[in-house]
Amino acid sequence: MSDRPDTPLLDQVQEPGDLNKFSDAELRQVAHELRAETISAVSQTGGHLGAGLGVIELTVALHAIWDAPRDRIVWDVSHQTYPHKILTGRRDRIRTLRQKDGLSGFTKRSESPYDCFGAAHSSTSISAALGFAVARDLGGAPEHGIGDAIAVIGDGAMSAGMAFEAMNNAGSLGKRLIVILNDNDMSIAPPVGAFSNYLSRLYAEEPFQELKAAAKGMASLLPPPFQEGAKRAKDMLKGMAMGGTLFEELGFSYIGPIDGHDMSQLLPILRTVKARAAGPVLVHVVTKKGKGYGPAERASDKGHATAKFDVISGEQKKAPSNAPSYTSVFGKELVRLAGEDQRVCAVTAAMPDGTGLNLMAERYPSRTFDVGIAEQHGVTFAAGLAAGGMRPFCAIYSTFLQRGYDQVVHDVAIQRLPVRFAIDRAGLVGADGATHAGSFDVSYLTNLPGFVVMAAADEAELMHMVATAAAHDEGPIAFRYPRGEGAGVDMPDKGVPLEIGKGRMIRDGSRVAILSYGTRLKEVLDACEALEARGIRPTVADARFAKPLDRDLVLNLAADHEALITIEEGAVGGFGSHVAQLLANEGVFDDGLRFRSMVLPDTFIDQASPADMYATAGLNAPDIEAKVLEVLDVAQVGKRKA
Amino acid sequence: MSDRPDTPLLDQVQEPGDLNKFSDAELRQVAHELRAETISAVSQTGGHLGAGLGVIELTVALHAIWDAPRDRIVWDVSHQTYPHKILTGRRDRIRTLRQKDGLSGFTKRSESPYDCFGAAHSSTSISAALGFAVARDLGGAPEHGIGDAIAVIGDGAMSAGMAFEAMNNAGSLGKRLIVILNDNDMSIAPPVGAFSNYLSRLYAEEPFQELKAAAKGMASLLPPPFQEGAKRAKDMLKGMAMGGTLFEELGFSYIGPIDGHDMSQLLPILRTVKARAAGPVLVHVVTKKGKGYGPAERASDKGHATAKFDVISGEQKKAPSNAPSYTSVFGKELVRLAGEDQRVCAVTAAMPDGTGLNLMAERYPSRTFDVGIAEQHGVTFAAGLAAGGMRPFCAIYSTFLQRGYDQVVHDVAIQRLPVRFAIDRAGLVGADGATHAGSFDVSYLTNLPGFVVMAAADEAELMHMVATAAAHDEGPIAFRYPRGEGAGVDMPDKGVPLEIGKGRMIRDGSRVAILSYGTRLKEVLDACEALEARGIRPTVADARFAKPLDRDLVLNLAADHEALITIEEGAVGGFGSHVAQLLANEGVFDDGLRFRSMVLPDTFIDQASPADMYATAGLNAPDIEAKVLEVLDVAQVGKRKA
Repeated sequence: MSDRPDTPLLDQVQEPGDLNKFSDAELRQVAHELRAETISAVSQTGGHLGAGLGVIELTVALHAIWDAPRDRIVWDVSHQTYPHKILTGRRDRIRTLRQKDGLSGFTKRSESPYDCFGAAHSSTSISAALGFAVARDLGGAPEHGIGDAIAVIGDGAMSAGMAFEAMNNAGSLGKRLIVILNDNDMSIAPPVGAFSNYLSRLYAEEPFQELKAAAKGMASLLPPPFQEGAKRAKDMLKGMAMGGTLFEELGFSYIGPIDGHDMSQLLPILRTVKARAAGPVLVHVVTKKGKGYGPAERASDKGHATAKFDVISGEQKKAPSNAPSYTSVFGKELVRLAGEDQRVCAVTAAMPDGTGLNLMAERYPSRTFDVGIAEQHGVTFAAGLAAGGMRPFCAIYSTFLQRGYDQVVHDVAIQRLPVRFAIDRAGLVGADGATHAGSFDVSYLTNLPGFVVMAAADEAELMHMVATAAAHDEGPIAFRYPRGEGAGVDMPDKGVPLEIGKGRMIRDGSRVAILSYGTRLKEVLDACEALEARGIRPTVADARFAKPLDRDLVLNLAADHEALITIEEGAVGGFGSHVAQLLANEGVFDDGLRFRSMVLPDTFIDQASPADMYATAGLNAPDIEAKVLEVLDVAQVGKRKA
Repeated sequence: MSDRPDTPLLDQVQEPGDLNKFSDAELRQVAHELRAETISAVSQTGGHLGAGLGVIELTVALHAIWDAPRDRIVWDVSHQTYPHKILTGRRDRIRTLRQKDGLSGFTKRSESPYDCFGAAHSSTSISAALGFAVARDLGGAPEHGIGDAIAVIGDGAMSAGMAFEAMNNAGSLGKRLIVILNDNDMSIAPPVGAFSNYLSRLYAEEPFQELKAAAKGMASLLPPPFQEGAKRAKDMLKGMAMGGTLFEELGFSYIGPIDGHDMSQLLPILRTVKARAAGPVLVHVVTKKGKGYGPAERASDKGHATAKFDVISGEQKKAPSNAPSYTSVFGKELVRLAGEDQRVCAVTAAMPDGTGLNLMAERYPSRTFDVGIAEQHGVTFAAGLAAGGMRPFCAIYSTFLQRGYDQVVHDVAIQRLPVRFAIDRAGLVGADGATHAGSFDVSYLTNLPGFVVMAAADEAELMHMVATAAAHDEGPIAFRYPRGEGAGVDMPDKGVPLEIGKGRMIRDGSRVAILSYGTRLKEVLDACEALEARGIRPTVADARFAKPLDRDLVLNLAADHEALITIEEGAVGGFGSHVAQLLANEGVFDDGLRFRSMVLPDTFIDQASPADMYATAGLNAPDIEAKVLEVLDVAQVGKRKA
């Protein structure tokens, strides 16, 4: 395409081994071209831009020095791996990123041998890399062998408990393991850069341990401006609650901080690490998110996630929205409730914008808590708030709440503490794919005694459920809602608490009843429209609650129809399973009921638009229509053979 | 009772406020009596002895100085709270500990207002206490108010990622919060005690910050033996990956280490903390597990958990076992397989003895990994091992695997990595009660695509399942088995891999089929024996696999019988729900099937013997018998009203 950048050196790279022929100066040029190519690709696909731009030089340096896939490079979160994908044989598909049948926006083992470990949730890389390091020393993978194990992890991800657990374990095992701490919270001031330049040359020339000692001694000998820079680097480290000393106490050799955009630092230091590391080593690399692309550098989120955009202006091409997002509806209703009730407060695990709690944080900062990437702590902290008489809303995406599951069981459910769980990104989520799907929350919450579990059918329902949760002091309560914009329904002025455990009739019909849980309701109604043409008019109800079930509603629907179909945006074991359990216990199956439970299929579904993903899942209007016809046709054709 | 200790001062304590009348010398005597009473009580009930004995003085000091329940004392894990229970109005019931209808072996909000936050799993206390501290400052619980929030946490629990997350958050919030680090890994050498004595007097006399500075300066001024002691304390801290410096970098004031058995240190220091703490404070208290009871101090586990025992000799009164424990069967079979296959390795999260991996660690130490209280890391580390070509067994109790759930989903299931999960303590566990019940693993694992999920019906089956898991390289696989001893069946020489997804027929019968998943099989067969007398002979099958289901088995049983009953030791959403989903999809319900799914009820069941707990749950032989009669009687009586 004509708008592609000119990349003469990058064009010669089909796989990382092709980098070997380049001089250090040429590798700098490769990085330059890789940055342009990354910007060009993401301008066409949308996606995570800032993180990738921050690790351009690091990506080139790692692949130039190490020998992937034999050396295992494990990228934490891995939304920063678009440049890695370009260098590892996937450049020809890079403009299919995050599209249906295209490249994943994350590392994925099934996509490439260079993606030795998949990711998307944060803070897993050190654990996985340690696994590779230990497997290597135990003779695992004898056919090709395992070389170095390298984890590349951001400063935010490093703050999660899981990363601490991994460091703690790695330090005591003492295996050769390389952790690159990609610290992108700080712009590098020149003094730090110069200081690190100096160190990097020392590292490259002298034996490892001696150099470390030398480097330490250097700081106090430097003139004041350099000390100032060093002090800022140290303060920054303190801010993230870890310093070189801590890494050393954990058994790691600590190197840094170094300028992650300066190849004259990166290349010699990493070569030295490769040549000399004996046990676990942490290399502290300071980078700038969005580096080298003005619009990203200037953006408040440093170009974290972007729609398609114009490369020159940076302007994003977003489709106009027809309805408010579920996220914003939740955020606004919560702010309203917080205005009425001093006990309403909110907890997020590093997702204030994604959860809509930024609205709450602006208006009621003293009652809004961002605990960092720390779902375990966040849930129990909310439990403590509830035990202390507050009305906490714990807003965590479905997929990330999996990280706090034990705390949900042990600290919230067993104690019946009234923590309100606002579960965004329920069901299939689109471009982020299987790793971000909210498939399991209904099943993993409905089996907890005393839990109230709701799903909103539309954005007005969500408002009522936020209000319901606020008013519910008897125990834990959760409500789920999807990513994206609402159905465009009329909105009430404010949410009104629902009766716990009561669903609602949507339309009366005959022969077949469809009991919907969540936002598939719209698809159900679309299916009913198509069915009208065939003279079939299903009864439709919105369950609202998966727990407690509306027993009367379920049993009446079963009694009054030949067939009952449940539908939900979740895996088996959730709403439909609880309905089946009720029907079985009540003997409803004894004499026959055409019961079907439509759930997410037993596969992880790759990224595509949510609508496409639900088509794959078989949960769209045509699938519902077909299910109704199937279940009624069977009724017309004859009886099951006994 | 005549064998009770003489406790004249303790007899005057009905509630913590009664401690106010005692002098410091008398509090020392109270501690002495409390220790004797604790030993006496546990000798009659069995339970966690060592941990409680380690915090006798700390418990007295906390309750003498602070004003519970207004001040919130949050005990981490809380198996060390028997002395706390004695001091807080429950002495009259202390000999019912861990018995049916007796006191819980842990803190429990419903048991006493002095148990402000329940526990049993580790590392939750700082999060909960921070919740109380924030709630206090936001005006929560206005009726009685909230005073201080105090977390008491062990050094092992502090090493978990969750505790790190909580410290990280607490330090940045800056609220007044007191964390008592109860460090019981080290015996206190006299120099440390003397040094700390000196510090404790300084703390008590001088303003807080100045004293901290003074204390720091003290170390270098002391003569060599004292320095040696201080160095050992510091090394010990390094061993647990944290030091005073780190706590300070996290925003905490650090005090310690102090001798947790020396009231002349504890009382003045804690009084000073209470008087002067402004923000978060960490008090590092060094104690000795099992302190003051010779048999516990001498035991390798420091009297961690004990059966009833003779107070004089320390001899435990254990019932003779009739069959090997499931745990040991697993451990031995794993060792056998590890001898055959260099790729077999094992991961435990701080439970080498409880999981039976101590056998593996003895024989193959280089292939056995105890990662500490770090389930999140442990699961992903195992995933890394699998990606590196090893055959890792990840042995974690059902209830604790909840802590690694996201890692099971994100790192193992989505990547289809062949991690073998050995899930001990499946189902109801007895004296440890609801917090340790393994109720949810079947449902939270069977909904994961590509997972193989097995349950052993007896200890011979377990052997086969260990072998099945070892041989299964196609993806993740899990097998569950209960606490305690096996059924006493004949044991094979070695495990033989089972065919994936195939159950087995146990006995042929008619009219009703019972499909069992797990160790309820014995109860099913007992029920069948009783039913024979009524002329009813059920067909019985062992499903072995909840996933993939044995479709042919399920459908054939349904086709050939009037009724089908499933039974499992898990909550709804698991095995029975998957069977129901299959039956529904296949149209088996369309013309009627008397289907019942027997699962754990929708309540958290308090501690009792496992048999009693299963009686409460309605999953014992008489319950199965009744279910069969009910489902067949209904058949005889008539049809459901349409």
